[in-house]
Amino acid sequence: MTSIAKLPRPFRGIITPLVTPLINDESLDEKGLNLLLNHIIEGGVNGAFILGTTGECASLSYKLKHKLIALTCELAKGRIPVFVGITDSSPAESLSLAKVAEETGASAVVAAPPYYFDLGQQELITYFMNLADKLPLPLFVYNIPSQTKIMIQPETVKILASHHKIVGMKDSSGSATYFNSLLYHMKDDPSFTLLVGPDEMMASAVLMGGHGGVNAGSNFYPRLFVDLYKSAIKGNLKEVLQFQEKVMEFSAKTYQVGTTGTTFLKGLKAAMSISGFFENYTASPLTPFGEREMEIIKENLKHLNRK
Amino acid sequence: MTSIAKLPRPFRGIITPLVTPLINDESLDEKGLNLLLNHIIEGGVNGAFILGTTGECASLSYKLKHKLIALTCELAKGRIPVFVGITDSSPAESLSLAKVAEETGASAVVAAPPYYFDLGQQELITYFMNLADKLPLPLFVYNIPSQTKIMIQPETVKILASHHKIVGMKDSSGSATYFNSLLYHMKDDPSFTLLVGPDEMMASAVLMGGHGGVNAGSNFYPRLFVDLYKSAIKGNLKEVLQFQEKVMEFSAKTYQVGTTGTTFLKGLKAAMSISGFFENYTASPLTPFGEREMEIIKENLKHLNRK
Amino acid sequence: MTSIAKLPRPFRGIITPLVTPLINDESLDEKGLNLLLNHIIEGGVNGAFILGTTGECASLSYKLKHKLIALTCELAKGRIPVFVGITDSSPAESLSLAKVAEETGASAVVAAPPYYFDLGQQELITYFMNLADKLPLPLFVYNIPSQTKIMIQPETVKILASHHKIVGMKDSSGSATYFNSLLYHMKDDPSFTLLVGPDEMMASAVLMGGHGGVNAGSNFYPRLFVDLYKSAIKGNLKEVLQFQEKVMEFSAKTYQVGTTGTTFLKGLKAAMSISGFFENYTASPLTPFGEREMEIIKENLKHLNRK
Amino acid sequence: MTSIAKLPRPFRGIITPLVTPLINDESLDEKGLNLLLNHIIEGGVNGAFILGTTGECASLSYKLKHKLIALTCELAKGRIPVFVGITDSSPAESLSLAKVAEETGASAVVAAPPYYFDLGQQELITYFMNLADKLPLPLFVYNIPSQTKIMIQPETVKILASHHKIVGMKDSSGSATYFNSLLYHMKDDPSFTLLVGPDEMMASAVLMGGHGGVNAGSNFYPRLFVDLYKSAIKGNLKEVLQFQEKVMEFSAKTYQVGTTGTTFLKGLKAAMSISGFFENYTASPLTPFGEREMEIIKENLKHLNRK
Repeated sequence: MTSIAKLPRPFRGIITPLVTPLINDESLDEKGLNLLLNHIIEGGVNGAFILGTTGECASLSYKLKHKLIALTCELAKGRIPVFVGITDSSPAESLSLAKVAEETGASAVVAAPPYYFDLGQQELITYFMNLADKLPLPLFVYNIPSQTKIMIQPETVKILASHHKIVGMKDSSGSATYFNSLLYHMKDDPSFTLLVGPDEMMASAVLMGGHGGVNAGSNFYPRLFVDLYKSAIKGNLKEVLQFQEKVMEFSAKTYQVGTTGTTFLKGLKAAMSISGFFENYTASPLTPFGEREMEIIKENLKHLNRK
Repeated sequence: MTSIAKLPRPFRGIITPLVTPLINDESLDEKGLNLLLNHIIEGGVNGAFILGTTGECASLSYKLKHKLIALTCELAKGRIPVFVGITDSSPAESLSLAKVAEETGASAVVAAPPYYFDLGQQELITYFMNLADKLPLPLFVYNIPSQTKIMIQPETVKILASHHKIVGMKDSSGSATYFNSLLYHMKDDPSFTLLVGPDEMMASAVLMGGHGGVNAGSNFYPRLFVDLYKSAIKGNLKEVLQFQEKVMEFSAKTYQVGTTGTTFLKGLKAAMSISGFFENYTASPLTPFGEREMEIIKENLKHLNRK
Repeated sequence: MTSIAKLPRPFRGIITPLVTPLINDESLDEKGLNLLLNHIIEGGVNGAFILGTTGECASLSYKLKHKLIALTCELAKGRIPVFVGITDSSPAESLSLAKVAEETGASAVVAAPPYYFDLGQQELITYFMNLADKLPLPLFVYNIPSQTKIMIQPETVKILASHHKIVGMKDSSGSATYFNSLLYHMKDDPSFTLLVGPDEMMASAVLMGGHGGVNAGSNFYPRLFVDLYKSAIKGNLKEVLQFQEKVMEFSAKTYQVGTTGTTFLKGLKAAMSISGFFENYTASPLTPFGEREMEIIKENLKHLNRK
Repeated sequence: MTSIAKLPRPFRGIITPLVTPLINDESLDEKGLNLLLNHIIEGGVNGAFILGTTGECASLSYKLKHKLIALTCELAKGRIPVFVGITDSSPAESLSLAKVAEETGASAVVAAPPYYFDLGQQELITYFMNLADKLPLPLFVYNIPSQTKIMIQPETVKILASHHKIVGMKDSSGSATYFNSLLYHMKDDPSFTLLVGPDEMMASAVLMGGHGGVNAGSNFYPRLFVDLYKSAIKGNLKEVLQFQEKVMEFSAKTYQVGTTGTTFLKGLKAAMSISGFFENYTASPLTPFGEREMEIIKENLKHLNRK
C-alpha cells in the first residue's frame, strides 16, 4: 500500500487526468484502459488521475467506479502513482470511494466541492477539514468552478493547507489571476503542491512557479506535455513556445468542435477513438460526437503529428 | 404496490417536499419523520415528496436514502402517495433509487437533470427518454436551474410528455414567464401535471391553470398551503390574498435570514426544530444555522400564528 | 407641464414600452411613431414609456433621444402620460435626460441601475436617493437584472419608497417569487406603484395585487393587454385565461424565434413591420432579423387574429 | 496630430489605464492628473489609456470625458501616446468620443462591446467593423466580460484583425486559456497587438508571447511594471519572479479589501490618495472606501516599498 509519506512534496510534473474507456454505461473497456496506461507511462508522465472531470466521474455508477479504481491500480503496477477522484455531492460517498482507493493501492485522492448546493467559503473549510480528518490518503483539493459553481478562495486554500492531510491543489478555473494569487498566498509553504488544469495554461503556470499540470491533452500526447513541462522548468522559453504551439493546435482542433460545455471531453474521446485506443463512447447523460463532428476531428487530426 | 395507473392525471393539490429529519449525517430521526408525516397528512396535503432539494437529496448517502424511502412509505401507510426524488449525477444510480422506490411502495419518482456536466436540450431529451424507458414508476421531471444550471425548455418538456411514463413536472425556477410558457405549451395535454415549487408563487400559478404546488413551507404550515390552493382553485381571490400574506410572511421571516444560497432550507429546518419537530441538524456539507440566526428566527416565529 | 401631483398613486393599468421606430441609427421614423402612438391610445392603454429596453434605450444617441422625448410628448398631446427612460451608466447623463423630459411635458421618469459596474445594494440606495433629490419629475425604479446584472432587493425598494419622488417600480425580472416579495414588502404603502414587465406574467401579477403591466406586446395588441388587465382587476378568471392564451400565443410566435438574448425585441419589431407600422430597423449594435426569421414570423402571424 | 502610421505595430510595453482624478462628479482634479501623468512617464511606461474601466469610463458625463481627453493629451505633451476609451452602449456616442480623441491628438481608441444588450458573435463583428470604418484613429478591441457579459471569441478577433484600422486588443478576462488561444489564433499576424489587463497575469502573458500589459497597478508602481515587463521580454525568469511577488503583494493588499466587484478600483484610488496623488473620490454610482477600509489599506501600504 502506498502511504502519505511516499508522495514527494510538492509533487511535480504531469499527471494525466485519465479518460475512462467504456464499452457502455456499465462496462469498462479494460483493454483500452491498459493501452492508455501504457501509452502515458511510456510518454513519461508522473501520475494518473482517474475519476476527474475528464474521466466522467459524475456520470459513472459506484460499481463501475470501484472496478475502475482497482483495475487502474492493478494495471499501473506501481509504475506511476494513481490519484483517485472522490468528488461527490454526498460526503459519505466521497469517503467510501477514498476507502476503496486506499485498499487498492492508490496514492492520493482528489476532491472538488460537493456540487449541488451553494456553499459559502466557511462551509467549504468545514467540509474539507472534516473530510480530511477521516481520509486514509492525502488529499488534493480540486477547484473547478465551471462545474461546481464555486471558486475556492486563495485564503480558503491557505487555511486548508494547514491540515496535514491536505497536501495540494488542482486548479481548473482557467484564471491566471487566480492561479498567481494561489502561488502568492502559498509562497511560504513550498511543500504544498499547486497544479493547473487547462492544457493551454500549464506552461505559463509552471514558468511562474506552479509545480505541474493535470492536463487532459496528455491522454493523447503524453510526451508533448512532459516535454513542455520540462522546458518550462528549465526556463527554456524558446522550447516552451515550440511545444506550446502544438498544445494549442491540439486544443483548437479537438476541444473546440461543437457547441456545448463538454466539447473538450467529447473531442478528446473522439480523437482517442480515431487513433485506435478505444471506442468513441461517453457515459450517459453525455452523448458522444456524431458523424459530422467525427469527420471534422478526423480531418483536423490529419494535420497533427502525433508523438 | 402502487402502479402507474393509480395516480390521478393530472395530479392536483399540495405535495410536501419533505425536510429530512436527521440525527447526524448517517442516521435518520425516525420519530421526527413520523411526527412530520402525521403533521402534513393531518394538514390535508395530497402527497409527500422525499429526496428533493428541501430533503437535502444530494448530501445523503445511498444507505440513508434507501432507509428513508422504505421508512417513509411504511409510515405513510398509503394515506398519501409518496414521490421519491432520484436526481443524481449518475443515471445508473438514479435508476437504482427508482427500483428501491418501486419495491417499497412509492407512487412516482422525480428527477432533475444530472447536475455536473453542462448538457444541451437534446442531451436532456435523450437522458430523460432513456431513463423513463427503464423506470418501474411514473416520472415527474424537475426543473431547478438554481442547482442544475440548466433550464428545461418548454419545447423539451412537450417532447418529454410524449413518453407514457413521463406524467408531469415540478418547476422550481421561480420564473412566471417560464411557468406560463409551460402552461401554454402543454395546453392540449391536460393530463400532464404541472406543479410549481416556490411557495411564493403557488397561488398565482394555480390561478393561471397550474395543478398545484410542491412547497417547502407546507412542512411547517400544511393546512395553510392546502387552504391557499383550494382558494385558488375556487377562484376566491379575496381568500387567496389573505392566505398569500401568511405564506409571504413565513417566507420573509424564515427563508431570508442569512446570506448563502441555502437559507430557505436552513431557515425551514431551524423553524421546524424551534417548533419541536426534530433537532436542527443539516447534513454535511451544509452547516445548520448557529446561535445568532436561531435567535432571529425564534423571534420572528413569535409573530406568526402557527396553524 | 405635468407635475408630480398629476399622476394617480398608485398608477394602474397598461403602459406600453414603446418600440422606437427608426429609419436609420440617426433618424426617427416620425410617421411610424405617430401611427404607433395612435394605435396604442385607441387600444386604450394608460401610458407610453419611451426609452425602455424595448425602445432600445442604450443604443440611441443623445441627440436622437432628445428628439424622441420631445416628439412623443408632442404627438401624445396629453392623451396619455409619457414616461421617459433615463437609464444610463452615467448619473449625470440620466439627470440630463430627465430635464429634457420635464421640459417637454413628460409625466415621470424611469431608471434602471447604472449597468457597467457591479454595485452593492447600499450603492443602489445611495444612487437612487441622490438621483431622486435632483429630479424634476417622479421616478419609477426599473428592475431588469437580465441587462443590469443586479437584482434590486425588496428591502432596498422599501427604503427607496421612502423618498417622496420615488413613486413606483417596474419589475422585468420575470420572477414571481420576487414580484410577490415586492407586494408583501410594500403592502403598507398602497400608493407605491408596482408594475410588471414580462407580458407572460402580467395577469398573474395583477391577480395577486400588482397595479398593472409595462408589456412589450401592447405595442402590437394594445386592446388585448387592456382587456386582460381589466379581466384580472375584475377577478374574472375565465376571461383572464382566454386573453392569456392569446398573449402566450403572441409570445411563442414572435419572441421565441432566433437564439440571442434580444429575440423578443427583434421579433416584435419584425411583427410590427410586417403589419405595416414601420420598417424593420433595429439600431446598431443589434441587427434586425433577416429573411429567414422574417418568413417564420410572417407565417406565424397569419395564425393570429390581430385586434 | 498623431496618425495611424505613428504607432508601432505591434505596440509593446506597459500602458497605464489611468485612474481619473476627480474633485466631484463634474470636476476633474487637474493638478492630480498632471501629477499622475508625470509619475507614470517618469516610471517609464509606454502609453496612457484614459476612460478604461479603471478610469471609471461608464460613470462620467460626456462633458467631463471631453475635458479629460483634451487635458490628458495636452499634459502628455507627446511624451507618450494617449489611448482613449470610447466604450459606450451607443455606437454613435463612441464615434463622437473618437472624434474628440482625434482632434486633441490621441494616438488610438479602445472599445469594448456595447454593454446593455446581449450580442452574438456575428453582431460583435458587424459592430466593430462598422465602427472601424468610421473611426479617425486606429482601434484596440477591449475584451472585459466581467462588465460586458460577453467574451469576444478568438475566431471573432481573427476576423476583426482583417480590418486595417483594428490593430490590437486588450484582454481583461483574466483567463490564461483565452489569452493563449488569442496568441495561437493570431500567430500568423505578428503586427496585431495583444495586451493583457489583470496585473497578476501580465508577466506570464508576456512570457508566452504577449506584447505587454494595460495594468491598473502601474498607476501606483509604474517602474515596477516596466521592470517586470522587461524581465519577461528578456526571459530572465529569476527577475520575473522577484518583481511578480511585489505585483502580487500590491494586488493582495489593495485590490482585495472589501466585497463588491469594484474593490480593485476603490482600493487603487484609496492607495493613490493615501500616497498624496489626489483625493479619494470615485464618481457616482460607486462610493469610495470609508474609514474602515482606508485604515486597512493605510496599514497594508506601510509594508510595501513604493518605487
